[in-house]
Amino acid sequence: MEEKRTEISQLGEFGLIDRISESFELKNPSTVKGIGDDAAVMDAGDHYSLLSTDMLVEGIHFDLSYIPLAHLGYKSVAVNVSDIAAMNGKAEQIIVSIAISNRFSVQAIDELYKGIKTACESYRVDLVGGDTTSSSSGLIISVSVAGKVAKEKVAYRSGAKPGDIICVTGDLGAAFMGLQILEREKQVYLTDPNMQPNLQKYEYIVGRQLRPEARTDIISDLEEKGVKPSSMIDISDGLASELFHLVKNSGYGVRIFEDKVPIDKETFDTALEFNLDPITCALNGGEDYELLFTISQADFEKVKNHADIHMIGYMHETKSANVLITKQGNTVPLSAQGWNHFKP
Amino acid sequence: MEEKRTEISQLGEFGLIDRISESFELKNPSTVKGIGDDAAVMDAGDHYSLLSTDMLVEGIHFDLSYIPLAHLGYKSVAVNVSDIAAMNGKAEQIIVSIAISNRFSVQAIDELYKGIKTACESYRVDLVGGDTTSSSSGLIISVSVAGKVAKEKVAYRSGAKPGDIICVTGDLGAAFMGLQILEREKQVYLTDPNMQPNLQKYEYIVGRQLRPEARTDIISDLEEKGVKPSSMIDISDGLASELFHLVKNSGYGVRIFEDKVPIDKETFDTALEFNLDPITCALNGGEDYELLFTISQADFEKVKNHADIHMIGYMHETKSANVLITKQGNTVPLSAQGWNHFKP
Repeated sequence: MEEKRTEISQLGEFGLIDRISESFELKNPSTVKGIGDDAAVMDAGDHYSLLSTDMLVEGIHFDLSYIPLAHLGYKSVAVNVSDIAAMNGKAEQIIVSIAISNRFSVQAIDELYKGIKTACESYRVDLVGGDTTSSSSGLIISVSVAGKVAKEKVAYRSGAKPGDIICVTGDLGAAFMGLQILEREKQVYLTDPNMQPNLQKYEYIVGRQLRPEARTDIISDLEEKGVKPSSMIDISDGLASELFHLVKNSGYGVRIFEDKVPIDKETFDTALEFNLDPITCALNGGEDYELLFTISQADFEKVKNHADIHMIGYMHETKSANVLITKQGNTVPLSAQGWNHFKP
Repeated sequence: MEEKRTEISQLGEFGLIDRISESFELKNPSTVKGIGDDAAVMDAGDHYSLLSTDMLVEGIHFDLSYIPLAHLGYKSVAVNVSDIAAMNGKAEQIIVSIAISNRFSVQAIDELYKGIKTACESYRVDLVGGDTTSSSSGLIISVSVAGKVAKEKVAYRSGAKPGDIICVTGDLGAAFMGLQILEREKQVYLTDPNMQPNLQKYEYIVGRQLRPEARTDIISDLEEKGVKPSSMIDISDGLASELFHLVKNSGYGVRIFEDKVPIDKETFDTALEFNLDPITCALNGGEDYELLFTISQADFEKVKNHADIHMIGYMHETKSANVLITKQGNTVPLSAQGWNHFKP
């Protein structure tokens, strides 16, 4: 009998993760939360320690024809720090492993680590270890991050309750539109190497793609205001996809108002230039690394005047009714496309 | 002026690590030890937490034409657990990131995680997270491990004092000779696919290559006997290379006796079959994942009857005099070849 072969693309990334995590049990008393949130949570006595990881692969997550190595180094740290922020925690240490082909010189590696160092300084994390090895093709960066959070302050994906207000930070869709610009200018350049890329008009969105920031400032602000989010996640795969994580983990539904979703003017205009609907870009564009969180209504007053926190909707009882209220007042079902690196 | 290009092979892996770590400062008060030991050490209040990582790259660290995926999964966990053991600590959680090309089916990934699961059970560690992504070529596995150790028990590479006894566990050179057998049988098979690989005679050494174990049992035994090693490291790059790490970190020299270095009979016989000197294989063959440690002479009685701990020499004052006393009584300088994945 022939053995059955299932393609990974049939499962997708989330399906694959579910399949893997199902077969594993947690056995150590220090393990508080395993697979399934932005970071793992471990009991360290008087606090929780947090652990997360992200792997960036050349040709899949980045294209060295347009991302400078220093930015790539910065980004590889920022996306990990963002995972710790999404637990309402503070990142403290990172370890960085790289696999590099002999295409890369020592000077290139210096550039990469220059960006890693800048990010370490900006987020006050220490580089404490890693692994360096060669690869037969391209560059792979695997960063793990350790952090901590007070036990009573940890924010999971699961804690939202009906009536809780849904908040997002910053603005959305910018990193996705920045990527469209970079891809377009690359094609122009490949067609005619004498053409200079036209990026000036798109400085903000290109910067959002090449050098995202983790919103550690928001974590400090929330602490200062005495607000503990009832749930939180960072927006790496797109707002809609992350909203569905909150739905799945809380057991409640979401109602989102289109006119409340923050979109920068440059993102908006560029979306139109590409004949894309700006709200679709904001809902489904990934890599913004903003925070999505819920707060109880009792905390409304504490947050309402924060310039960079936007209330975009609320949680309600019905898990199956996840909707967007359009600017025209129509109620349409939310759908998540997210990112699937395994798509054929 | 043309920018200078330095090849990574000119620096080697250790040179590259030194170059990277030199430019980074540690700033967080919780960071006790950064780059430069088997694991990073963080102050977690009543204990130290430990963090380490290893990356395994197809075509560099493993060849799927002879390592079964389940063994590879097991090995990727074991080598990380070994890093925590080398700090005299206990591994508790791992996170596993994989990058996979579409050559791999879901069934193949199941096999890999079956091995990871077996290792998690055998070492009592929890899989708590990770990342899955596609790669344009081959399989990359990046594992990070978190563990803990009582503050007074942590063993660094740096603590050895003159007079301390140098110990190794198990036997050495086996994994290296196992690799030679696997490479030879692969060549035979490539020449004539009708030939069946002849591995039976080499079961022990091939097993040592394909499915190494972390010596967590030794950590328990030492604790039971009330012995705290004055320094410790795991043997991943070869005994000689690791001895030089102890020398560099302690500031003292080593004297090793050839007739005390443990070599299994199968390793010994196979080395001769390949016209290799068995002691050279034991000194320079990597991937045994045994422990190398030093104890004070006061602990001699507590350890001397342990069947799997071998005293192979001692530390002495002169850092520059690192020697091997041969079976014939000659004193020859030790030299470390180690492994350099960046060799051209």
